[in-house]
Parts: sequence; C-alpha cells; structure tokens
Amino acid sequence: MSRAHNFSAGPAALPETVLQQAQAEMLEWHGAGASIVELSHRGPEFIQVAAEAEADLRKLLSIPDSYAVLFLGGGATTVQALLPLNFAAPGQAADYVVTGHWGKTALKQVKPYVAANVAASSEAEGFRDIPARDTWGLSKDAAYVHYTANETIHGVEFRDIPDVGDIPLFGDFSSSIASEPLDVSKFGVIYAGAQKNLGPVGITVVIIRRDLLERAGQPRAEILDYRAHAKGESMLNTPPSWNWYLLGLTVKWMLAEGGVEEFARRSARKSTLLYDVIDNSGGFYRNEVAKAARSRMNVPFFLHDEALDKPFLKEAGAAGLISLKGHRALGGMRASIYNAMPEAGVQALADFMRDFQQRNG
Amino acid sequence: MSRAHNFSAGPAALPETVLQQAQAEMLEWHGAGASIVELSHRGPEFIQVAAEAEADLRKLLSIPDSYAVLFLGGGATTVQALLPLNFAAPGQAADYVVTGHWGKTALKQVKPYVAANVAASSEAEGFRDIPARDTWGLSKDAAYVHYTANETIHGVEFRDIPDVGDIPLFGDFSSSIASEPLDVSKFGVIYAGAQKNLGPVGITVVIIRRDLLERAGQPRAEILDYRAHAKGESMLNTPPSWNWYLLGLTVKWMLAEGGVEEFARRSARKSTLLYDVIDNSGGFYRNEVAKAARSRMNVPFFLHDEALDKPFLKEAGAAGLISLKGHRALGGMRASIYNAMPEAGVQALADFMRDFQQRNG
Repeated sequence: MSRAHNFSAGPAALPETVLQQAQAEMLEWHGAGASIVELSHRGPEFIQVAAEAEADLRKLLSIPDSYAVLFLGGGATTVQALLPLNFAAPGQAADYVVTGHWGKTALKQVKPYVAANVAASSEAEGFRDIPARDTWGLSKDAAYVHYTANETIHGVEFRDIPDVGDIPLFGDFSSSIASEPLDVSKFGVIYAGAQKNLGPVGITVVIIRRDLLERAGQPRAEILDYRAHAKGESMLNTPPSWNWYLLGLTVKWMLAEGGVEEFARRSARKSTLLYDVIDNSGGFYRNEVAKAARSRMNVPFFLHDEALDKPFLKEAGAAGLISLKGHRALGGMRASIYNAMPEAGVQALADFMRDFQQRNG
Repeated sequence: MSRAHNFSAGPAALPETVLQQAQAEMLEWHGAGASIVELSHRGPEFIQVAAEAEADLRKLLSIPDSYAVLFLGGGATTVQALLPLNFAAPGQAADYVVTGHWGKTALKQVKPYVAANVAASSEAEGFRDIPARDTWGLSKDAAYVHYTANETIHGVEFRDIPDVGDIPLFGDFSSSIASEPLDVSKFGVIYAGAQKNLGPVGITVVIIRRDLLERAGQPRAEILDYRAHAKGESMLNTPPSWNWYLLGLTVKWMLAEGGVEEFARRSARKSTLLYDVIDNSGGFYRNEVAKAARSRMNVPFFLHDEALDKPFLKEAGAAGLISLKGHRALGGMRASIYNAMPEAGVQALADFMRDFQQRNG
C-alpha cells in the first residue's frame, strides 16, 4: 500500500513532511559530507541540531529557564527508576496516583528505593476514572507525588493539573506532552518518551526544576545522575543523536503548525469525532471511561461482539487505517490520535466505523 | 560537498548502501503503510526486523546459544553502571584493567556499588601500552574482570583475549566489535555501543553468558535488571526500534561483505597503510603507542608542529576527508577506520598525509 493512516500508540505516526526531510538528509546533512547519524555528537553540526531542538522545545512548551531539559536514551521506564534515586532519600515516602497500566509500571520501578505509597488508585474499578482529588491519601513528607497525565492503554486523561500543595509534582506526559498548553511551573518533573507525541522512538525528554537537582538522592553511578546529565548538557555519554535530530524536526513542525494552542483545538475536534461515533452507535461500539476522564490522545473502544474484532481490523487495514488493535492488557480496539495524526485520518476512521456498523449492525 | 570520507570516532560512518536503503524505506517499510520508526515494537513488522537483526548478529559474531543478546538504549556507559548491579554482590571486589580513557570511565561508574580494584593501569605512562599480563594484580574473589578491548581515544588495542582463569571476563568492545573473529565463549559479558562498528548511534548490544543472569546482584529496579531484559527479549519497555533496524541493515551488510574474517583482513591493511605513513615520515607525523598495542580501529597521531594542525584539518576537509580532529583529551589528529570506512578512503587519507608532508616538511 501507500502510506496509511497509522493509529499506533507508540512508536507512532510522524508528520509526513518530517519524514520527507529526514529522507532527503539521510545521506548528507546540509553539505556536511555525512549524515547526522554519522557525525560526532560533539561536532559543530550536531551541537547546532541539539541546541535548536532544545530552544524550539522550550518555546513550544513555554519551559521556564529555571527548568533543565534533558534528552536521554533508555525510555520513560528508566526515568521512573531514576526519579527516586535522584530525588528521594533511601526509604523516604513517595506518593503514587495510579490511574492505569503505566502508573502501575512507574510504581513497580521504585520499590527497591522508596516507601512507595499508593495515594489513590482506580484499579479496583478497572481504571475507568480518576479518583477524586479529595480522596487521595498523600503522605506528610513525601519526596514527590507521581501521576500519569494520560494513560495510553486505558485511555484515561487528567484534564487539569492536580493540586498537591508544596510537594513537587512529577508527571509522566509520555502520551500527551505538547497536546495542549501546560503550566510547567506547577511541576517538579515532567517526562516523556518521545515516540508518541514528540517525534521518534529512542529518546526521552526529562524536564526538571533546577532546585530539585540539589537533592542528594541515593548512591548512584554518575550515568544515573540527573545533576551530572544537566551539567553535561545531555552529553555525559553519546546521546541518541539521530533520534534527537528527528525530535527537533518534529518540534519545528509543531511550531510551524501553530503550537500547542492549535494542537489542543485539533485534539478536541479529533477525539470528539470518535467519541461521538462511539456514543451514538447504540452500543455497537463501547468506551467504558467516565466522560470527564476520557483521553483526547488514545481512544480505546470495544465492539459489542468480539467476533467482529477480526473483520473490523481486516477491513480497516484494507481501507488504509492501520494499528487499531487494542493493547493485549485490555483487548478491543484503540485509536491513538497524537499531534501527527491529521484530522482527515480521524475523519476517515469515523466514516469507516459508521459504515462498518451499518454493514454489521 | 557530496559525501566525504568520514573518520569520525563515533557516531561514525555507515555503509552508503545501508543509508540508501534506510532512505528508500524512510516513509514506508515493505508495504506496511508506515515507516519502521512509526510502527509498534510489538507489531509483526518490527518483531521480524528485531529477530532478523539478532539472528544475523549471532551469525556474524558466532554467538553461542548459551549467551543472551540484548539490544538496549542508554549507551555503553549505562552498561558500565549496570554490570556491578547485576553481577556483583554489594561491596564485592571487581577488577578493572585500565588502558585508556574509557577504562577510567567504566571504573568511575562502579564506585558506588563494588570494591573496584585497579588490577593494572597504564595511566602513569600516558596510556601508550598494555600492562603485561603477569603484572596484573587480580583479586581473589572478584565478581568479574573488566577491560576495554580497544581504547578509542588513545588508540590502544588488545590483540588477544587476556587469560583471567575462572573469573568471568567482561569486555567493552564498543569500538572493535565485529572487526575480527572473536571467541565469545571466553567471555562473561561483551558489550558495545553500536555507533562505531555495528551501525547507528542510540543502541547498545550486551552479550551475556546466561548462567551469570542467575547471580543475585544488588537491589535494583526491574528496568535496570538484565535478567528481566533477557526474559522480555529487550522489549521490557519500548526499545530504540529504528536504531535496532539500522543496526540490522548494517549487520546484513557485514555478512554480505564476507563477515568478520574479511573485515579483519581489511582492518589489517587499512591500519598498516596509515601507520606506515606515520612511521616513514621521519618524525613529521608521530604515533606514540607501543607497536604491539596499536589499534586497528583508531589511529591517533600528532604533527611535529602543532601550528600545522589547523591547516592540516582545513586542507583535509577540502579534500573530502572529514572528522580527523583528535579527542580533546589528547589533542592532535585521529583517524577512525571502522568496518564501514572503505579502503579507498584510507588510501586517500594516506596519500593526503604524504602530500601534506611534502608541502610542509
């Protein structure tokens, strides 16, 4: 086939113009005699690429100077393990709000390092809602409060920033960063694997309020130390430079398209399109998440009859709509509609869903 | 300019045909409707790419089934920190043989975790040789012995595998893996950042004798646990899938070119070409490494007059020979001539060096 509308949850669709630029520069970057993937991370070419990507990301997300921005390999799960090592004393309390699969993963990583306290969890109800803020049981002297801004698998998204007082708030924004304006100053740490809404797989962005870098944390190797990474400008060792470059191209594209305000408008329209098809299907399609907590990024849904799952996926694929199979933890379908997914793609899916229902309802 | 001969130490030159294939597949991989960089790491397309890369790498390096092969983000420095966490008890002795900058880096990472013993070091002599095996002071109950097979900055390379008896030998092969046949069964762990001799930046290969995965190690998060990574087939979290794909293409290219035996012959010829120019220059060029320890991968050299450094680099660049500036820790020049550097490129550099000497000698 030619390029399809790709609803993958991550690694996910990139803007076609970004891929075209990467393609054009694959053998040689800007007359340098070599590709960016072949050039030293300490050479003038990549230093320029890296600095531009950081400046553009700071502009896109309105990141204050009082925050360090790191570009690292290892994925968001590695960040989850390093948060307590860098920001909590051994055995100190750390609060976790668990609203889906990834919140559980985050919690799992810290068990060896802190007294993890599940301040709130919606697991007993199948991760279909966000526990009301006044039910959270926060610790008195927690090192931080951690939550997952958008749960990619369960399709549950916080629509505002929870108020946790003076305790630093750490947010996993892997699947919703740059999808709407965000007041970074409300956070201690924001982190995100780039492969959903910021660009390519293989690079993770960690945004850290600089005063937190003064915390002693726990004994750790230098390469696991965010203070050292901040001092070394993410080049303590060889960074994933090609991935950083592609992230930079994607951020430039987002700025050119109108920035996070514009993507917030598009995300509202795109997600509304799909939820409307689901809610107006008379039960043919089903989304189980409380309406106020529904994700604008990942729309999981079930067909009323599981026997229709296979034909749905097959016919969707034939119609150029791919990667719609739900995560194995949940089953069903999932449409991930990050910034790079054009509205036309979501419209095509909505049309297909209505048509499929008509033929099979 | 058009594509130059790129002597970068890493990220380093890739085979042009590999870049051309990546370019052709940048917008769509094999009719999948999307690029590999956009497809789920758990989908059938990437699973095939990943499995083929592992099978090809096992073939290229003759890796026995009794070894696990991991493909991870984070770079070789992260591996250095995780080695004691996974394979040594807290505070246990671990022996380090230090023959250059990267051996020192490896040692630095483990200080919080083990009683690191410098079994041998050539630092006092400026890292110009390898301490004779019979001078090494190995610990009695070390968890492992670590050494750096090739020192990228100092241009010092072990030409045989050191015999350390029954203690597992851990080798950093970041800059010499796949450059010649290697008896993997002599090692406990072999690891390498891919960006020098295995392909692109952003992915690291760790080859582990499976019985070592039974060691308890030290308290650590799951994402820092090699046993968990081995069980999860390097997909405990989202791996750097695009980088893995490009590594796979590079390994396929190496197999097609004749494998490690062929690259050993080429490396011998390429490095001899350069060392001959240096040794026959009457002191105009200088390499300070003991002949038996000279690297076949990285040839550092100095001009007899530092004032010639700038003109040398400028004229080399104009002649299409780039990235020859030595590492800031050492100064001078360095030609890195990994597998992807064609013999014609090294010949062009040798010719240029002789010509430059004639004009400036």
